[in-house]
Amino acid sequence: MADARQYFDLPSPFAMKRGGELRDARLAYETWGSLNAARDNAVLIMTGLSPSAHAARNAGDDSPGWWEDIVGPGKAIDTRRWYVICANSLGSCKGSSGPASINPATGAPWRLAFPDLSLEDVGNASHALARGLGIERLAALVGCSMGGMAALGALACHPGFTRAHISVCTAPRAQPFAIAIRSLQREAIRLDPNWNEGEYDDAHYPETGMNIARKLGVITYRSAMEWRGRFGRIRLEPDERSEDPFGAEFQIESYLNAHARRFTRSFDPNCYLYLSRASDWFDLAEYGGAPDPATAVRNALSKMQVERALVIGVETDILFPLEQQQQLAEDLRATGTDTTFVGLDSPQGHDAFLVDTGRFGAAIGAFLRDL
Amino acid sequence: MADARQYFDLPSPFAMKRGGELRDARLAYETWGSLNAARDNAVLIMTGLSPSAHAARNAGDDSPGWWEDIVGPGKAIDTRRWYVICANSLGSCKGSSGPASINPATGAPWRLAFPDLSLEDVGNASHALARGLGIERLAALVGCSMGGMAALGALACHPGFTRAHISVCTAPRAQPFAIAIRSLQREAIRLDPNWNEGEYDDAHYPETGMNIARKLGVITYRSAMEWRGRFGRIRLEPDERSEDPFGAEFQIESYLNAHARRFTRSFDPNCYLYLSRASDWFDLAEYGGAPDPATAVRNALSKMQVERALVIGVETDILFPLEQQQQLAEDLRATGTDTTFVGLDSPQGHDAFLVDTGRFGAAIGAFLRDL
Repeated sequence: MADARQYFDLPSPFAMKRGGELRDARLAYETWGSLNAARDNAVLIMTGLSPSAHAARNAGDDSPGWWEDIVGPGKAIDTRRWYVICANSLGSCKGSSGPASINPATGAPWRLAFPDLSLEDVGNASHALARGLGIERLAALVGCSMGGMAALGALACHPGFTRAHISVCTAPRAQPFAIAIRSLQREAIRLDPNWNEGEYDDAHYPETGMNIARKLGVITYRSAMEWRGRFGRIRLEPDERSEDPFGAEFQIESYLNAHARRFTRSFDPNCYLYLSRASDWFDLAEYGGAPDPATAVRNALSKMQVERALVIGVETDILFPLEQQQQLAEDLRATGTDTTFVGLDSPQGHDAFLVDTGRFGAAIGAFLRDL
Repeated sequence: MADARQYFDLPSPFAMKRGGELRDARLAYETWGSLNAARDNAVLIMTGLSPSAHAARNAGDDSPGWWEDIVGPGKAIDTRRWYVICANSLGSCKGSSGPASINPATGAPWRLAFPDLSLEDVGNASHALARGLGIERLAALVGCSMGGMAALGALACHPGFTRAHISVCTAPRAQPFAIAIRSLQREAIRLDPNWNEGEYDDAHYPETGMNIARKLGVITYRSAMEWRGRFGRIRLEPDERSEDPFGAEFQIESYLNAHARRFTRSFDPNCYLYLSRASDWFDLAEYGGAPDPATAVRNALSKMQVERALVIGVETDILFPLEQQQQLAEDLRATGTDTTFVGLDSPQGHDAFLVDTGRFGAAIGAFLRDL
């Protein structure tokens, strides 16, 4: 399989926000386009929880990426103009250091000995990568979902890191509904006896827990409205049904099965736990120095030195509800950032940024063209 | 413990909609008030998935019931005027025959040998109970959540069964989001090795699966809006936290834990599976003789001979969205039933009918006073 990944050695030791440090850690990343002589055309993309650094096809890997319709020559993030970088998040399992990678001190996988991971660590690592590539200031920092929180974390820790910010379907702090969902996903994995306090292998793998976690993810990533139109109460054909009296009977059930099948063995369960918990922990209000969280978030945003921002959200998103993006846009505007807010009525819920790429691309393309 | 339950022997054999029959089956039920001489003041309440027949305290059981604020002397369902009956659903485990009860033919619990259960069976059993109590026509049939679907099933099978109908937070057919949630709840139970194809006991009990199913239930029964105001990002006190690095840290997580703890051992897992699957199966359109489901539902409603109806729903309900109650009210009105629709903005989601009893009581009380 073609592989376009490059690897960046993080400064060693690399201090972690909640304590502990990493030695000889690295980030996997991919790039598109070229850095110009002024080094001012870099766009860094921070991903959601599960994607790799392969946002789009490139010279090293011709397979379509997770944001194939958005990133490329002539596309919304136009790689003829921009030098685009996408990193696999620190703590993930797609080439970067994390619970599934080898701990150089022991020669064995880190598993739960990996230090507590916060989204600020994810942001700091991506900041170090940009610096390592010779970029003092990004043209734009793009953060999607969990990556949007990590991007805010990076900006809180590194004011002036970017000239423009594109915030996609994210929030400055998780609300209790999202925490409840993620907590239950983690619990499903941890309660699977095969998880075994993180000491699983391919033969004894927490497949059941990952299956439940993924299905719960898909249920909250999409929307009831989309499914009503798409699946309704359509039954499976008799030959698609099993003998199991409680087996899948409706199309919506086999759709969830297919999603879970694709995911359970392709993402490391311990990495999932770490990144999921980091999402619950993240709270931009910590950087605002005010007891009232709303004031604190605004204070934190006021220090980031972002000149222009685009904030996009979707009406049908139940995990990162549109009000959170609306508020983020208002707060950015109130603190002096020239901000565009786009609220879309895409039916696909939180996943719309991966699916309704026509509308997301139009908003992002227009914003970047004017930059 | 006091027990006000009475038992009604269902006609034997009792034919089940999807095939098979029950012999010597029974329903547990409780009553409040007195049947008048004309036998025209009976109000039958059909419950959600998990409640017992104990809707409110009565002479036999002074403990508060699940609808304590709604049912009683001088309350919305005024037991000085109405003879109120509440049955434990057929298939449940609170005294009625179901997968957890003894199969008289074998002397052992039915478990998965219990025939396929549909909500029409639940409705037929409650209809038989009313007949057995000497009631030809109810004054009002009240159905909440799953019980609301079962009530529509009873009315589809027994036109003229009630003069008035009160439909609470329910739907004429489940939509794919609700099916997805329930399917995942069932899967969590079935994937628990202790479920053991239904052959568990107290020492080997699918606690993990029931825990996940219940938490997922609570997440979808309540609303993100309520939790934002109630829990926000409030942390547990240090002495409430466990040593487990992935243990509960936010109040919302301990709230879910408390709910799950109360439920997992108090409701039979096989009964849960049967009633949950029956909820997915229910489709009033089956009674409408038209290929288009919307037309079929309306046709089915037109045959029920309901004179007056009250339909109540809640804006924040994600499991039975308000549009479904709105549509149900429109359809009832269009087919000649004098219908009142009440859409409440209660923050508590689907559970509002159990919690926001002030507003639900006001609507139900006003409707019944005019009856």
